[in-house]
Amino acid sequence: MTDIFAKHAGLRAAYEGLTASSPRNPFEVVIERPLSATVGIIEGRETLLFGTNNYLGLSQSHRAAEAAIDTARTMGVGTTGSRIANGTFGLHRALEEKLARFFGKKHCMVFSTGYQANLGTISALVNKDDVLLLDADSHASIYDGAKLSGAQVIRFRHNDPVDLERRLGRLKDHTGAKLIIAEGIYSMTGNVAPLTEFTAIAKRHGAYILADEAHSFGVLGATGRGVAEMQGCESEIDFIVGTFSKSLGTVGGYCVTDHDGVDLMRLCSRPYMFTASLPPEIIAATMAALEEMEERPELRIKLQENAERLHSGLKAAGLATGEHVSPVVAVTLETVEEAIIFWNALLENGVYVNLSLPPATPDNRPLLRCSVMAAHSSEEIDKAVAVFGAIAKQLGH
Amino acid sequence: MTDIFAKHAGLRAAYEGLTASSPRNPFEVVIERPLSATVGIIEGRETLLFGTNNYLGLSQSHRAAEAAIDTARTMGVGTTGSRIANGTFGLHRALEEKLARFFGKKHCMVFSTGYQANLGTISALVNKDDVLLLDADSHASIYDGAKLSGAQVIRFRHNDPVDLERRLGRLKDHTGAKLIIAEGIYSMTGNVAPLTEFTAIAKRHGAYILADEAHSFGVLGATGRGVAEMQGCESEIDFIVGTFSKSLGTVGGYCVTDHDGVDLMRLCSRPYMFTASLPPEIIAATMAALEEMEERPELRIKLQENAERLHSGLKAAGLATGEHVSPVVAVTLETVEEAIIFWNALLENGVYVNLSLPPATPDNRPLLRCSVMAAHSSEEIDKAVAVFGAIAKQLGH
Repeated sequence: MTDIFAKHAGLRAAYEGLTASSPRNPFEVVIERPLSATVGIIEGRETLLFGTNNYLGLSQSHRAAEAAIDTARTMGVGTTGSRIANGTFGLHRALEEKLARFFGKKHCMVFSTGYQANLGTISALVNKDDVLLLDADSHASIYDGAKLSGAQVIRFRHNDPVDLERRLGRLKDHTGAKLIIAEGIYSMTGNVAPLTEFTAIAKRHGAYILADEAHSFGVLGATGRGVAEMQGCESEIDFIVGTFSKSLGTVGGYCVTDHDGVDLMRLCSRPYMFTASLPPEIIAATMAALEEMEERPELRIKLQENAERLHSGLKAAGLATGEHVSPVVAVTLETVEEAIIFWNALLENGVYVNLSLPPATPDNRPLLRCSVMAAHSSEEIDKAVAVFGAIAKQLGH
Repeated sequence: MTDIFAKHAGLRAAYEGLTASSPRNPFEVVIERPLSATVGIIEGRETLLFGTNNYLGLSQSHRAAEAAIDTARTMGVGTTGSRIANGTFGLHRALEEKLARFFGKKHCMVFSTGYQANLGTISALVNKDDVLLLDADSHASIYDGAKLSGAQVIRFRHNDPVDLERRLGRLKDHTGAKLIIAEGIYSMTGNVAPLTEFTAIAKRHGAYILADEAHSFGVLGATGRGVAEMQGCESEIDFIVGTFSKSLGTVGGYCVTDHDGVDLMRLCSRPYMFTASLPPEIIAATMAALEEMEERPELRIKLQENAERLHSGLKAAGLATGEHVSPVVAVTLETVEEAIIFWNALLENGVYVNLSLPPATPDNRPLLRCSVMAAHSSEEIDKAVAVFGAIAKQLGH
């Protein structure tokens, strides 16, 4: 009998090497409980959270929690059904209408996770006769959606309009549909996509364009609609996909568009049709968080200030950060060994960040991925920067 | 520019034919709000719900709602992170331990949806060198997981051990791993799989076996562990997958197993790693629902009585039901036209069931899929049967 797990032997060796060299498993951190948006108990200690996607701190919104509480009391804890059967409550429709209005788009579909929003949108839009042009640093959910779709996949160099245009140029005789996919902010590095340039290229080559604003929704743009709003190209983006599990602090995903053809997606998108819909209390919390986001633009201003404070602080401490100032600040290190020592020392000194190791990192060097929230105080940021600086010094940076 | 929606033309024609012949769109029913587990407001009227997956009625459990409420108040409405980053709270571990104990298995992984549990388990277990043997009537999430895995897919005839064995016999020189996948109860028809026979075949042919007990968890077996428990073959099943969005009334999925190799799945299962974890209040509600299920075996007894009552009632009314008595009772009709008329008449008379149309139905005939709950009263079942009977009479059955 062939061992079904034998295929993981390489991964197991890498994993055992990693865990042997690290006092704790970096992929099995447990937040025993959160005390606030910015502090959680890890290994029994109060720990500053600088490695979440909770950009506006709304996972701990009082208003969102109260909406969830009221709704759990009156509507229960789940729908037990798919959106196309018994799983559409009035609330699901209300959230879709609210999001469509917020984005100024005609249509909105809500999915049970952000992962399924990408899977469900991409796999319903393209098939084997079509071509997908994906930024090389695309999120796993985009690659998995591409695989599920069966479409031909062409990767273009990360954030590189010239490379995108060159590759589209070679497709001018292709008869299928072409769909370009880029993210707003890239989750690992904080890089921002040149969406305006991409939309111009899409137009020149008769391609559609989808932007995944998972990390930029609620974060960038005058009203928080993301990179497309910030760059003034929203009307040129065919499909915007995003998630509730970052700036809005809950779980779920969405796709908004002006294309009327999307109505059929509700009857052919398998990751939309063959899954239970989101529980009513999650929908209610998401609506409340969206309202809070709309009514409190100061959260985005504070987030930007905090991003600048963290970015400049880490830079001043001599650490290698990216060029973009965004709520995601990646510190690049040279070796995996050093990254593991650094990450453990941070946690032992009360600062949690994400450890990202090759081959999952964009340029195959290890990253300490830090993220800030609107909820962080200046003191908390300064403390994290001080801890980073002290460890860097100890390690001879 | 190639119209990206042109590929949906066939589906659109079918859809427009359907909606032209139906007073309402059967895939866009809105439950304005639930009044209880068994009654919801649809089109402004109180409607009996006989088309959900809420088998034990626990979506409306007071205990689960209170657990969600307490947890939303103390821990917020989401984690904003993946399980391998900041998305593992103490609660997620506690639920995994509780489920492993409940199933008497060593390991449990919790996924953000049941759909992702199948995608994440299947795509991590097999790859292009392996063979999947799928029951032909498998759920979309199994087929999508298979596609994502890249494994060779061989379908065997629904619930047919002889066909499965014949197909495995042809693979005796295949060097990759072989994984058989079957469901416990099939969601459309209520059919129960011959899992014991399948496990014997798996053993003879050196194959692994995965059972998806989505619709049987909480429903069958002395303690509600599903068909494998009922048939006494649990120790022979390698992987059991299931969902929280049916008998437990919330949302999410799991995989339990005794194989230690599953630890690596947490580092290579993309639908597990690249998605936000379930919000703490959903985990708490799920744990409370699981406790209620364990402490109230009378729910399962009542469910079985209700299944028999609905099944025999519909049969006595002259309707074509399946042979298995299970909480899912499918009424088969001859033509799509009649099914649409029947389904609309049911709803207009205060009974909601699921309309299933070819090609999505097992034998290409339309189905009215009914499901009962432990929460249904005898009067509610008798009323639904009476409405069914009256419509059948009107339609000349």
